[in-house]
Order: sequence, then structure tokens, then C-alpha cells
Amino acid sequence: MNCISPGPSLALVLMSLHGTSCFETLAALRPLFQHIDRHQNEFVQRLGEWVAVPSDSSQPALWGEVEKVLRMAEDRITAMGGKVEFADVGSHQLPSGESIKRPPIILACFEKDPKKPTVCIYGHVDVQPAKKEDGWAAEPFTLTELNGNLYGRGTTDNKGPVLAWLHAIETYQATKQEVPVNIKLIVEGLEETGSDGLEELIRNRKDTFFSDVDYIVISDNVWLSRRPALTYGTRGSTYFFVEVEGPKIDLHSGVFGGCVQEPMSDLTALLGDLLDHTGNILVPGINDSVTPLTEEERKLYTDLQFDVEEMKQEIGVQRFLQDTKEAVLMAQWRYPSLSIHGIEGAFSLPGSKTVIPRRVIGKFSIRQVPKMEPAVVEKQVTEHLHQMFAQRNSPNKLKVSTTVRAKAWVADLKDPQYIAGQKAIKAVFGVEPELIREGSTIPIAHSFQELTGKSVMMLPIGGHDDGEHSQNEKISRYNFIEGTKVFAAYFYELSLLKQSPETN
Amino acid sequence: MNCISPGPSLALVLMSLHGTSCFETLAALRPLFQHIDRHQNEFVQRLGEWVAVPSDSSQPALWGEVEKVLRMAEDRITAMGGKVEFADVGSHQLPSGESIKRPPIILACFEKDPKKPTVCIYGHVDVQPAKKEDGWAAEPFTLTELNGNLYGRGTTDNKGPVLAWLHAIETYQATKQEVPVNIKLIVEGLEETGSDGLEELIRNRKDTFFSDVDYIVISDNVWLSRRPALTYGTRGSTYFFVEVEGPKIDLHSGVFGGCVQEPMSDLTALLGDLLDHTGNILVPGINDSVTPLTEEERKLYTDLQFDVEEMKQEIGVQRFLQDTKEAVLMAQWRYPSLSIHGIEGAFSLPGSKTVIPRRVIGKFSIRQVPKMEPAVVEKQVTEHLHQMFAQRNSPNKLKVSTTVRAKAWVADLKDPQYIAGQKAIKAVFGVEPELIREGSTIPIAHSFQELTGKSVMMLPIGGHDDGEHSQNEKISRYNFIEGTKVFAAYFYELSLLKQSPETN
Repeated sequence: MNCISPGPSLALVLMSLHGTSCFETLAALRPLFQHIDRHQNEFVQRLGEWVAVPSDSSQPALWGEVEKVLRMAEDRITAMGGKVEFADVGSHQLPSGESIKRPPIILACFEKDPKKPTVCIYGHVDVQPAKKEDGWAAEPFTLTELNGNLYGRGTTDNKGPVLAWLHAIETYQATKQEVPVNIKLIVEGLEETGSDGLEELIRNRKDTFFSDVDYIVISDNVWLSRRPALTYGTRGSTYFFVEVEGPKIDLHSGVFGGCVQEPMSDLTALLGDLLDHTGNILVPGINDSVTPLTEEERKLYTDLQFDVEEMKQEIGVQRFLQDTKEAVLMAQWRYPSLSIHGIEGAFSLPGSKTVIPRRVIGKFSIRQVPKMEPAVVEKQVTEHLHQMFAQRNSPNKLKVSTTVRAKAWVADLKDPQYIAGQKAIKAVFGVEPELIREGSTIPIAHSFQELTGKSVMMLPIGGHDDGEHSQNEKISRYNFIEGTKVFAAYFYELSLLKQSPETN
Repeated sequence: MNCISPGPSLALVLMSLHGTSCFETLAALRPLFQHIDRHQNEFVQRLGEWVAVPSDSSQPALWGEVEKVLRMAEDRITAMGGKVEFADVGSHQLPSGESIKRPPIILACFEKDPKKPTVCIYGHVDVQPAKKEDGWAAEPFTLTELNGNLYGRGTTDNKGPVLAWLHAIETYQATKQEVPVNIKLIVEGLEETGSDGLEELIRNRKDTFFSDVDYIVISDNVWLSRRPALTYGTRGSTYFFVEVEGPKIDLHSGVFGGCVQEPMSDLTALLGDLLDHTGNILVPGINDSVTPLTEEERKLYTDLQFDVEEMKQEIGVQRFLQDTKEAVLMAQWRYPSLSIHGIEGAFSLPGSKTVIPRRVIGKFSIRQVPKMEPAVVEKQVTEHLHQMFAQRNSPNKLKVSTTVRAKAWVADLKDPQYIAGQKAIKAVFGVEPELIREGSTIPIAHSFQELTGKSVMMLPIGGHDDGEHSQNEKISRYNFIEGTKVFAAYFYELSLLKQSPETN
């Protein structure tokens, strides 16, 4: 039943399902795909313009840059006839007590045809911090093409995919084809710091903006291997700040070393006891809500095309904490993990400084799996830290606080949107996607599902080696352009779903 | 036998010893002291010019600034008729492999009279790092006077004292009095990072520059209380870098959390196990060379005027690790201590970043006491860390390296230079100095004594609350100006010593 493609530019390998033959699909999609191929340089250039804006949301001082990219997105949407609302999502209180406006969230829609299904696309335009001196080969905020890869902060997470969605819509218009679905967009600027304000917005617009939405689709993650993927689950995350405060000023370690209980001694002792040397989290009760593994679930892992050796080479580790492909993927997807990210307030520059820092803030996060409630995790960890700290009988002050607090998400693989996703991928790449989960957190996947009750799917176009959050983040030109085709094909496949009685 | 001073500006309270009555001393010193009082604004202004140069030696990129202050010192010395040599002390290899010249060391001398004793003054013009955002009330490199205090990085450590020495010499010349001793100066620019190259220079110049030196004096520390002090001992220091290297790139904690042995887990576990919660160092054998406490030594501590409560309030701690004044001072002076300063390579900015850092370097230092050999301490700690690390069975790489490696120093209190120091202090402040030790490290105190065999004394003029290495470092105008008088009086008292048969 497969139409084997003669080459990548005509990779139209389709199955005849829901009454549409692969030839009809081919005919419908070919002009779109050809347009995308012909305009790829223009698409890449736009990505360069977006990447050039350092929209690092971890620093409120850069929220103006985040807003700048939101305005660039607005320009593109309105140029295509869409209507954009900048939804206010309140203010953020800085540690200084000062309050600043959060970047607004784009709610956009296009003219509606009641006969078509409505899909709402989610994306974000903020990025992780990046500095060249962290080890980037080129300037992180200058798009740099090398060996078919487009390097730059945000290329894959998530500016590239957001632009690919916009280019897919533009392609329908440019080729004079009617977009076969109604499209809405929700684009935010605080995803990397926990999407503050978004959940409330979804709740408030549940019965207005979201009322006529049939499907919600998110492309904010990457494939597992060289095979394209569809994602049916993500882990949640709670980010912890463990502050230990001692003297009122930094002290000289020569003068005071030995008589002062140093905040760094307390903090390193606390952080050093969070995990055993095999990666197990030592917080009592933390694993109580982890779902037991079923035989059916185990089989899903066995079928995946994932090369542990290749992954080890790519990231440059000698070995993982687990020995098998299945165990490594389960550790990434279905079990919680704890990572220590760093310490604020201590000496962090190169060289030697003999300081006793007066106040230090350890930062770690726990990735949660479905059924683990962030509020429970927060309580367990906070109590554990206070208990450990009490045993030290330290004169210093301990303060534990959290941010993010995002729940894990898992979808029903029988959801018809997943059929459309699988067909779109097959239409472009000629292979079935892998059904994967995601170790990282897209907090709103869970929020969308829980608050709107709509079908939610994640349709990644980034490559498995894109290095999200890392130095030298990239998306390949191939994935960026073929991904744009997947999105165009997905609109088409969605529209067919709607007409097929068994899925309506 | 005391001449009670009517007020601080005439605080000439002298004892008649070594055949010179307090009235003769008064007559000799009064014009000097009056000159110093009258020119104090000029002296403070010069301190402001020196503080304005950010001569932070911890960053080789700022060594040009260090050299700038050395040139300013040269200008002052040559203006007074001294001769300055900039001694080459070799090069430093940067982590990049690049080699850069160390700042030279000033060796200076004035015209010599063979009948007079020769004193060599040591000082340094480099400073600790400082940034306003660390919590300084004013710009750290702008001298700011407030409530009688002169705030700024380097005011007390050590630009203020170095200038006070130069002003003391200048005062003799300005008042047309012959300086009663021959003066040499050694001024360096790498003290805060371990005085690299200095020891070799002393060794090389032992039989030339140092051959005719009778006394070596250092003013690079502070008083213990409100009473002036003479210092007869310092702790040594070895600074450790514990590097744990894992993946070849930073990783996303969502994607890889749970399957990768994270360098930060290894490092925090190692750092967290260096001390128990009472401040005891957990490295086997580390206390083996600590000298047992004698009854005689214990008595020295009992006599000291040191207010534990006041110290607690000044630095803002609820309690020390020890309960008594004696135990706190012994912990600072005669027992080793370990302080964890920070981590390089991890996330250290405000906010939240979900990174797994690929390579992190923990930094801590151990203050050593007399008889603890830095080479032995280095071996004990390195072996301990490797042993702890081996137990973790981590796939990451551990590298332990050290810098500083400075020995502790303790002087003989019967040394005649200490008599001159006590008299100079009494001449200015009207009280006997406290005989104290110093918890911090002046590596060259030990080097001078061991390599030259000369008498070494530390004659501090900084106040006990000056905050060396801390935010808002200061010297009071009072201490800066009265300290200049102490130095002028010290020259005078030294010259009398030389003539007194029992000390020659």
C-alpha cells in the first residue's frame, strides 16, 4: 500500500486510508511541498531574524526581547490575514519587590469556516540563556549554517517549529489552496521559565477562544532517533531553590574559617545527600506514586529504534546509569529524576577567591511522571531538606522555595489526531513515526488536556541531536524544511479525519 | 612612667626605655605627627587614586591594572629619592595554554647609611575581586568616605597600609628630619592569588638585596579588637580545585535527567562530605601535625581583649561553632579549617536554568597551622577525594589540583623588633598592643623567615571590622592616619634598638 518515493523532494509515500488514495493525497500535497522547497532560503532567513533576538526569558531584564519576537510573529500572522490579540497575563514580582509586566501571550485566529475542524497550534518564542563563552562554536544569537545544520539558540526550541507552522499556512495561501482546517494559534514568551500566566489564560478562555477548538497540537520537542516521532507523554518538573543564609556579610576564609558554620557547608551537605551514587532520589516517599510497569508498556519500549551506543557517543559519556535501551528510556520518560543545576551566590568565576559566601542558593529540579503531584513532591522535598538541616543544628537559616511546578502528561494513543499525525509524517518521510514520550517538560501539554478537555498531540520536527538547552543548539535545514511539509500535510490529514465518520 | 596624652591628636604616651625618655621621644615625634595630621586629606586623596584602579589579581586579564598601581608606587618612591627595580618574576600559564608575564615585583631602596639598621617593608597592591552587585553600598573602586570610614576595595588590604608606609617616609623628609633607619621596600601584585614568583625572588636575592636587611616588617592584616595589635603568627593555605568532567556538552535535565551520572551529583557529594556538621575536617590524618595545646599557650588566649558577642553582631551570625572566646580564637588561629568557596561551570545566575553542566570545578581551601606541610595536606586531601570518588563508581573523570600551598608562620615573641613595634604603638595610642595571631595567610611571612633568616614582624594598622575580602571593605580615616604615625614612630624606635647593646 506504500507509494515509494523516488527521492527526498518527492517523498510522498502515502497509504490509502479514510477513502483518500495515496495518489489523491500526492496530488493535493505536491504543489505545497514544491513551494516549500523553492522558498526554503526565505524561510531560513526569517529564522535567522528571529534567532538574532536574545529572547532569554530567564532574565526579566530581557523580557523586552521576548516581546520583540512576539511582535515579529504578530506581523507574520496579520500579513496572512490572521487576527492577533495580545492577551495580558499579569505581572511578575522581582526579588527586589518591584513588579513588572509579563510578556503577553498571542491568541490568534483566521477566518472561520464552520464546516472545517479547528486546530489550535501552540508554540513559544522565548529561549534558554546562552553565552558564546559557555562553549558555543559560533555566536548563539547569530544563525550559522554549517554542514546542513542551522545553529543558534532557539532554532529547534522553539522558534524554528513556530515559524514552520506559519510557513505551512503561508504555503497554502501562496499556492492558492484553501487551508483545509480552521487555524488558531497560541504563542507565549515564558515557556522556559514555567509558562507563568498561561494556565490561567487557558482557564479564562476555555469557553471562548478554546470552545470551538477540536485539536491542540504542540511541536516543542525532538525525535528520539533518526526516525520521525509522535509524542504521547512528557514528564513534569518542579524547580527548587534551597537558600542557606548565614552571616550578614561575606567573610574572609582565613579570618573566619573554623569558627563560623558556613552556608556552603550546609548547602553542599544538603545537595550531596539528595541522590545516591546510582541516581536514586533519597527523598522519602518520592517514588510512591510512580505507576508500576505493565507488560504492555514494556513492549512499547522494546519496539523503539534507539541506539544507546550512538547516544553515548553524541553526548560523550562512557556509560549510562542503566544497561539496556529499555532501561535508559524508562529512566528518561517514566521514572522521576533529580538534577542539580548550580549554586547562586557562591564564587563561580575562574581563579581562586578565599571567600565564605554569606548566602547561597542551591538549584535543582525534579522531573515528575504521571500521577506524581507537584504539590506533594514539593512537600516531600521541603520536609526532607528541613529535616536534614535540623540534624545539622546549624545557626544558619534555610529557605526552600519552588517554581515551575508543572505536571506530567500522557495521552491516549487511540486519539484520532494521532492518526492524522502518523499519516502526515508518512506522507513526507515515507516511514511510520515512532511513538515516544519525552523526558522533558512541556507544562502546558497537561494544562491543555486537563483544562480544555481537548485532544492534545505533540508533533516534533527537531532532530534527536539538536541540543535543546545546550551549547550549539541547532535544527537541520532538512528537518526545518521537511518539518514545514509535515505541518502542511497534517492540516490536510486533519481535514480528512473530520469527514471520516468513525472519527467524528 | 607613662606620659598621658591630653587627646588623640597628641597621643604621645611613651615609656622611658633603652635610655631615651618619653620626653625625648615626644620631642622627636611631635613634628612628624603634626605633619601627618595636617596632610591627612592629601594622604586620603592618594588612597582614592590607588583604589580607583581595579587591580584584581584573581583575573589575569586585570594584571595590567595591577601593574598600573605598581607604577604609581614607583612614582612615589622615586619622588622621595628612592631607587626602584621592577624584578621579573616569570610567566603564568593560562588554562588556554597561553603564557602571560606576571606583574613584576618592586624592589626599592634609599641611600644607605651603614651606621643605621635596615628595615625591609613588604606590601602588595593587588586586591580581591569586587562587584557592586555583590552587596557593596557604594562602587568598590571609588573611595567613599562615610562616618569616618574610607570604603573601597583595597583600602585596608593592602593599598592603605602600603601608602601609610610611603607617607611615613615622606613625613621625615618633609619635616627635614633624617629617616633614622635604612629603608628597603618589596611591593608585589599577586598576593591575593598566592604570591607566585615571590618566593623564588627572595631566594635569588637572599645574598644581595636582603643581605644587609636587619628587620622585615609586614602590615597586611588587622587588629583583633579596638586595641592595637602586633601579630606573631599566621595560618597557611592550600587552595583546591576539584574538577568533575562528564558529558562532552551540557545536557537538558528533562531529556537526560535520570540516565546520566551528573558531574554536579558527584561534586556535591564530594564537597558535602568534606566536613561534619561541627566543622571538623573529615580527611583522614589531616589533624596529625597539629601542635598540642600547652598551658602557657592557653594563657595567651585568656589575656586577649576579644568580645565574642561584638564579633557575632558585626558579622551577623547567631553563634559560632565554639562557645568561648578562647575556643573561637584557637579555631581561627591554631587549628586548621576548611571553607568551600564555590563552583565554577554550574549555573550561577539568578533565575532557573534546567541544565546538566558537563564539567564543574568545586573550590575549597584548607587553612594550615604550623607543622602542617602543604605537600602532605595536598596528598591527604587528593587521596581522600579519589577514594570517595572511586566508591561512587562514576563514569565521570575526577581531577584534583591545588594552588597557593602557603605554609603557616609563627614568630618568637622575644625578638627585639617586637619591642620596637610595641613602643611605636604605645607612642601613638597610649596602650600596649595585644599579641595576636592571624587566621588568614600571608604566605611570605613564612617565606621571609625561612629563606632570609631575618626577624619578621607583622604590624597591622587596619581595624578589626575592616572587612578584608568582603563587601564594603574599609579602613577608618583614624586608623589610616594614626597608622601612618605608628610607622613613623616604628622607624624611630627601631633606630634606638640598634644602638642599645642588648639587641645588637
